[in-house]
Formats: sequence, structure tokens, C-alpha cells
Amino acid sequence: MEVRVKILFTSICHTDLSSWKGENEAQRAYPRILGHEAAGIVESVGEGVEDMKIGDHVIPFFQGECGTCICCRSQKTNLCQKFGVNPLKSVMVNDGKTRFSTMDGNPIFHFLNTSTFSQYTVLDSACVVKIDTKAPLEKMSLLSCGVSTGVGAAWNVANLQPGSSVAIFGLGAVGLAVAEGARVRGASKIIGVDINPSKFFKGKAVGITEFINPKDLDVPVHEKIGAITVGGVDYSFECVGNLEVLREAFLSTHTGWGLTVLLGIHPSPMLLPLHPMELFNGRQIVGSIFGGFKGKTQLPKLAEQCMCGTLNLDEFITHELPFHNINEAFQLLIEGKSLRCLLHL
Amino acid sequence: MEVRVKILFTSICHTDLSSWKGENEAQRAYPRILGHEAAGIVESVGEGVEDMKIGDHVIPFFQGECGTCICCRSQKTNLCQKFGVNPLKSVMVNDGKTRFSTMDGNPIFHFLNTSTFSQYTVLDSACVVKIDTKAPLEKMSLLSCGVSTGVGAAWNVANLQPGSSVAIFGLGAVGLAVAEGARVRGASKIIGVDINPSKFFKGKAVGITEFINPKDLDVPVHEKIGAITVGGVDYSFECVGNLEVLREAFLSTHTGWGLTVLLGIHPSPMLLPLHPMELFNGRQIVGSIFGGFKGKTQLPKLAEQCMCGTLNLDEFITHELPFHNINEAFQLLIEGKSLRCLLHL
Ligand SMILES: [Zn+2]
Ligand SMILES: [Zn+2]
Ligand SMILES: [Zn+2]
Ligand SMILES: [Zn+2]
Repeated sequence: MEVRVKILFTSICHTDLSSWKGENEAQRAYPRILGHEAAGIVESVGEGVEDMKIGDHVIPFFQGECGTCICCRSQKTNLCQKFGVNPLKSVMVNDGKTRFSTMDGNPIFHFLNTSTFSQYTVLDSACVVKIDTKAPLEKMSLLSCGVSTGVGAAWNVANLQPGSSVAIFGLGAVGLAVAEGARVRGASKIIGVDINPSKFFKGKAVGITEFINPKDLDVPVHEKIGAITVGGVDYSFECVGNLEVLREAFLSTHTGWGLTVLLGIHPSPMLLPLHPMELFNGRQIVGSIFGGFKGKTQLPKLAEQCMCGTLNLDEFITHELPFHNINEAFQLLIEGKSLRCLLHL
Repeated sequence: MEVRVKILFTSICHTDLSSWKGENEAQRAYPRILGHEAAGIVESVGEGVEDMKIGDHVIPFFQGECGTCICCRSQKTNLCQKFGVNPLKSVMVNDGKTRFSTMDGNPIFHFLNTSTFSQYTVLDSACVVKIDTKAPLEKMSLLSCGVSTGVGAAWNVANLQPGSSVAIFGLGAVGLAVAEGARVRGASKIIGVDINPSKFFKGKAVGITEFINPKDLDVPVHEKIGAITVGGVDYSFECVGNLEVLREAFLSTHTGWGLTVLLGIHPSPMLLPLHPMELFNGRQIVGSIFGGFKGKTQLPKLAEQCMCGTLNLDEFITHELPFHNINEAFQLLIEGKSLRCLLHL
């Protein structure tokens, strides 16, 4: 039930960066191969794999879908019990071993079910899905994590309706993907919040209608948003992973029905900065992983939506480099200069 | 737009008790008239009131429904912006004055939009609704707060589906009303959790299928519930207002889709005892007021469901006393001996 994939394109997500730095709860089994956003071609399939064959175009995804566990059989969640994302996991499920090794036979460990910074990688078939060969494979790398996470948060988690108002905190690739998802769903107002004003130009291209730079305000962001939306937005999205931002995002929604979707990773052991009684105002808060997408079931359709232009990925690839320049690509991300740098293998 | 109601029956809720003691954030304008669970007959109506007339049987409710504000027009919330519950409110909306006064003309203050510990009370018409005269008026007092809060949490907030599993933390009148609501909706498993074993007998009558007394366990309650439900319940209800209980209730639900509904009042200024990343397991938590019921729109139907026996209120009235014995009724509640003591005026 494993698949060996020749990686053709891979890109870097903030989770790769933080894991590389040893932040968060990420696995620290060394040596290891990072990378979880990619697109490639099936090189070979193991026994039992029936939904992919040699030559298929595929996207790996870190939040697997076995299709048979109680969570996969539920329509309410995309959290597979068998191949769900586990930042500490470093070996394959089948035998607890690795599929990479050093020249002298020592194990090289896996990362996030994927390990795509490699010419070839081996994945559980639950963590890779076949897409239409006519889909532009280089852009499909974005569906592996960042863009799917953002678009899915708007579509699957918030289930955003036409005419809704939206505030997005943090305009990296994920936040901009939320905007793209909101635009496609017909949001009437998409407010982008970021302390880096250079994000605002890009934001316009993906549908952001208003910008707020918290540094330009002398009131809290939620007060400003409350004022320009008559009481708050219908949906807010926290794409930063900061507790103060989380609280601003929560308070920016309308009482009675406002929903805050968490996408940012919160590494600190701090508690939610909310008082229980604040939930009695009818505001809700919900976490999401991979935008609520069931990868096996839903990514092929998402790829089609990119092909037919419903979803526009052009704005997200800001740089392209050969794979051996990967350190340069990391630097671009660290400096906030790139959204996604596509690496060609 | 006001209605004067002759109160025939009233009962005591924990909120009356805590307000009497001066706990929580309750209003401390004295003198005042407490009480918010009642049933009565319209004595007179003010200008503009068209949905009630003299002689109508009515139920007051603290969480009003004006019908015209942005929240009342939304299907997503029952939190009226104009007559929503406000524990600090002590006067009428129209003129900021009171409708009660002492013999020498000084104001006596209102409480929770209702003030039902009185032979007559005046309410905004948004906080009182006409019900079928054939409904058993004495029992309708329970729909004013406690029973509606519990039943509505199961029906409106959780939208519990047949076959679901449920855990209820705290088996007072509200918790038992959750059980009754879950039973009516066809829950397959209804677990009651309380440290007072005397609650268990009553619980059986309203559909509780299993009991857990945390004092009898040597593991946390959520571990016990996880074990007997294969991973956790679909829905948990926190009816205590205690942060440790809240956390147990949260962890008692199944990852991926578990929903915890908060009903208990949390007076402490402490934060939610949850880490942001814990929301990424797909568990959700939501607050509710008055069980999500829109009083004007939905209580008449609820009264009908009591008339036809869909909903059984018999178990909730454990004592009946004349109104002048109200202090005895308070004592019964304090000692945990009564669920509801119905006071006859
Ligand atoms: Zn990622
Ligand atoms: Zn699964
Ligand atoms: Zn009450
Ligand atoms: Zn209203």
C-alpha cells in the first residue's frame, strides 16, 4: 500500500521552515527529509495499490485519508485516524521503518507523511492522490498544503456563503488563499490585516477589498473592523499563530453568529485567550487542518477547479528556482519576499 | 409595547439564587424583584401590542425577541440586540424607568427582563409569548428558563441526531432537560455525570442510560467516557459552570467532530482551559443562551410538544408550595433537594 513518486516540483511552507529551525513540536529524528508541498509522477506502486499506476500525475498530502477508519467514514471531519498528520512521526506506518537510507545503510527519517525535498519519495497510498494529467502539474504543488489549507478553510470549514463579510489576519500564502476562496464564493467584503504593507498589493489581486495595517491604527483592530462592517464580520481567519491576533480575530466577528477559523500554528503552551462567558455571545471558534479537505476524495476536484480557472493560483508562485537552490528559497521565505518559490527538480 | 401579566406560577432557577447571594455579575440595584421562570395570564396590554390580549395564557422569557433587529432576523442566533439578556439591566428599555415602586414612590428595580416573584409584573412584549390555553399552565413555568435551556441545547445548539451519544455534566434541572431533549431526539447513549448519587435515580426517568460519579473513578472522567464509547461521545454538555468540568466535557467528545455545549455560568475571570492547538483535533465548543430558542417564534411550539407528550415535564417539578413559602423553596434548591419547586400565587 505504498507508492514511490518522482518529485518534479516542490515548494516550501512555513512548517518546513519552523521544523528546520527545530521550533514547535516537530520531529527531531535526524537525518530526515523535510518538504510536504509537491507534485510528481508515480514511479512504481506497491502491492495492494489500485487507484494509482506508473506515470500517473499525483499530489502528496500530509493529512492522509485511509478511507476506512471511523473519521474517514464520517462526513464531519478530514482527520484520518491512521494517516492523520503527526509532527512527531518519522517512520512508515506499515513496518515502523524508513524508505530512505544513507549510503552505509542507516535510516533517513520521514517528515509529515511526505518528505518531498527529494528526487524520489515513498508515501503511504493514503497520502497521495492521482489528478488529471491535463492539470498544470507545477501549480499543483500548491494544493499539497498552503493553498488547499486556505481555500478549504473558507469553503469547507466556514462554508462561506455569497454576500458574507470576511476578515483575514496574516496575508501569507495561506491567508491569501483564504481570500481567493472567499472571492470565489462571492464574499461581499474581504478585509486583509497585516503589519507588512507590501502584502497589500498582492492581496488586491486575490480579491481583498480593504486593508488594515494594525500599526496605522490607534484603536484595536476589532474596533476598526466593527466600525466598517456594522458590528463585525461574519467570518474571521487567524493565519498567524499568535494569541493576541487570535483574540482580535475572535472579537472582529459579529456577535450571534461570527465564526473564527484558526489556521495558524500556536506553538506556545498558553491557553486560549478567551473567557468561557465570551462564548455566550454567540461567537464561535474552530480549528482546521488542511482546510478540512479529504485529500483522496476532494483534491482531484480542486485540481479541476484550477484547470477551468474557477480558482486562480497564478498569484501564489512568486519565484521559481532549480532544486539545488533550495537554501535561497528558504531565505526568500524567511525575509517575507516570497509567497511560494517553486523548486524544479 | 409592554404587557402586564398576572403571575400564577413561578419557580426558582440557580440564577435567582446566585443573584440573591450577590454572586456573578448580576445587577445589584436595590430594592429589586427577582424571578424569571413563570407562567401567567395577561392582565392588560400597552399601546402597540398586537400579539397578546387580556386573558391570554403567557410565558415570560428573559432572552427577548424583538423580531426586527439584525440578530432576530438571522436564523443563526437567538440573541436579540434590543432585549437580549443583560444581568446588569434593572429598568425598562422604553424610558429607562421601572414599573414597580414602593408605597412612597421610590423605584423597585427589574431583573432579567422578567421579575416574576410578584403577583403582577410588567414586561416588554418582546419578552413574553402567548401559548395555547389548553397547555397545562403550571408546568409551562419550566419553559421560561431551565427546561428550555436544556432541551434547546440538545435540539437547537447541538442539533442532535438519532443514534448520537451524549454526556451530560451536572444533573440539575438543566442537565436533566438536556437528557430529556436527547431522549426525544433518539440518542443511543446518554451518560450522566454528577458527584451527587441521588441525582441518578431521577436521571433514569428522563432517559439517562449510564451514570458516572467522578468520585468513584480513579481515572479522569473523559478517560472513562472514552473507554465506554470507543473514543468519546458525539456531544457533551457542561451544565455546572466549572472550568475543570468544562475541560473534562471537552475531552470527553470524539476527535474530529465532538461538540461541547456550554450551559453553565462561569463567573470567574479565568480563561478557557484549552490550548489553541487542541481545537485542531476537530473538537468544537460553543456557548448557548436559552437553548438557542427564539422565545416568541419557538416557545408556542414547545408548549404544544409538552401538551401532546412529546416532551415530558413531570419529572422536573419535585415540590409545590404557596408563594409566601418562597424562602423554603430557596432552601430546597440550596440543599440540592429540589429540581424545581413550583410556587403558586
Ligand atoms: Zn504546509
Ligand atoms: Zn482514515
Ligand atoms: Zn434561569
Ligand atoms: Zn431583536
